[in-house]
Amino acid sequence: MAEKGDGTRARILDEALRLASRDGLEGLTIGGLAAALDLSKSGLFAHFGSKEALQIAVLEHAADRLRELCAPAKGLPAGPERLRFLFQVSLDWIDDPQRPGGCPITGACFEFDDRDGPVRQALIRLQRNGQERAVEGFDAFAHPSRDRHQLAFEFRAITLGYHHASRVLREPRAREWARNALESLIEKAMRPA
Amino acid sequence: MAEKGDGTRARILDEALRLASRDGLEGLTIGGLAAALDLSKSGLFAHFGSKEALQIAVLEHAADRLRELCAPAKGLPAGPERLRFLFQVSLDWIDDPQRPGGCPITGACFEFDDRDGPVRQALIRLQRNGQERAVEGFDAFAHPSRDRHQLAFEFRAITLGYHHASRVLREPRAREWARNALESLIEKAMRPA
Repeated sequence: MAEKGDGTRARILDEALRLASRDGLEGLTIGGLAAALDLSKSGLFAHFGSKEALQIAVLEHAADRLRELCAPAKGLPAGPERLRFLFQVSLDWIDDPQRPGGCPITGACFEFDDRDGPVRQALIRLQRNGQERAVEGFDAFAHPSRDRHQLAFEFRAITLGYHHASRVLREPRAREWARNALESLIEKAMRPA
Repeated sequence: MAEKGDGTRARILDEALRLASRDGLEGLTIGGLAAALDLSKSGLFAHFGSKEALQIAVLEHAADRLRELCAPAKGLPAGPERLRFLFQVSLDWIDDPQRPGGCPITGACFEFDDRDGPVRQALIRLQRNGQERAVEGFDAFAHPSRDRHQLAFEFRAITLGYHHASRVLREPRAREWARNALESLIEKAMRPA
């Protein structure tokens, strides 16, 4: 029974993720989601309780999916190869045609940057987890004189630059630019500061 | 008479810019803007003609303001100093308390990345102008073996990373990280590829 419930929830959240990617997290409504899934609004409302709870569930669902995609990294030696793998997952995630409007977490960052409340708090928590993963990734191979938080900042900046170049400008060279920038960053990380 | 009209238009667009920063470009409505300015909806509608025309006027107004702020760069020698000045203007623009939700052009990029139409076209045009300015900035001092478009991509990535670290994560070290990243990029630009 739990499985059936989980399956339904996952299906609901997959669709919510698609809608949030297209319309933004604020554009996602229980009514719109109910219509897209051919479910009753009252049933969906009973499931999530509020629009904010639905928004948070969508963000966490996106983070879970991304974590699954990153999991094979653990099989790689800690070092630049693992970082390259995580980077590749991020670029593929940004371009995934299942999410027509790009990463809903990134979109939500620019929607909720100035709106305090539980959705913003959930977003910050997920973003800090991502930052910690990047810090750990550099920890494995960066020169001891290098500041890992500086490197993690630059790592995220490249993925944001890629989101912009690929999805906004639709630049054919976006991936090449992003990969070159990552290789520079890896080289810099290994040099003494 | 033209002056009076221009003054009114500028005042309308300043307020529209503030609202678009907070609510996103899609959240900006002629009704909401009329209420904020205590003007009639029909008067505003006559001024702009459509929501899309208003959205495009707001984007162009933001770009005009940014261009004014960048103008003193022409008084600096073409080289790293000029690039540092343009960078500083970008960071200050991102943090300007007059725009509570950050840069409306950046926000619009993540709202309109998947929505074709005249607003997206205006956005792309403005973004390409910005990219060209960064390419020219590097042209003045980068080593001939360096790809200017690669450098301009990384320049923009740092400003996007700053927007994220400063406005989303509210990281006290955001400015320090962004400045360090710019200095690395300037050093790299001067080295042979």
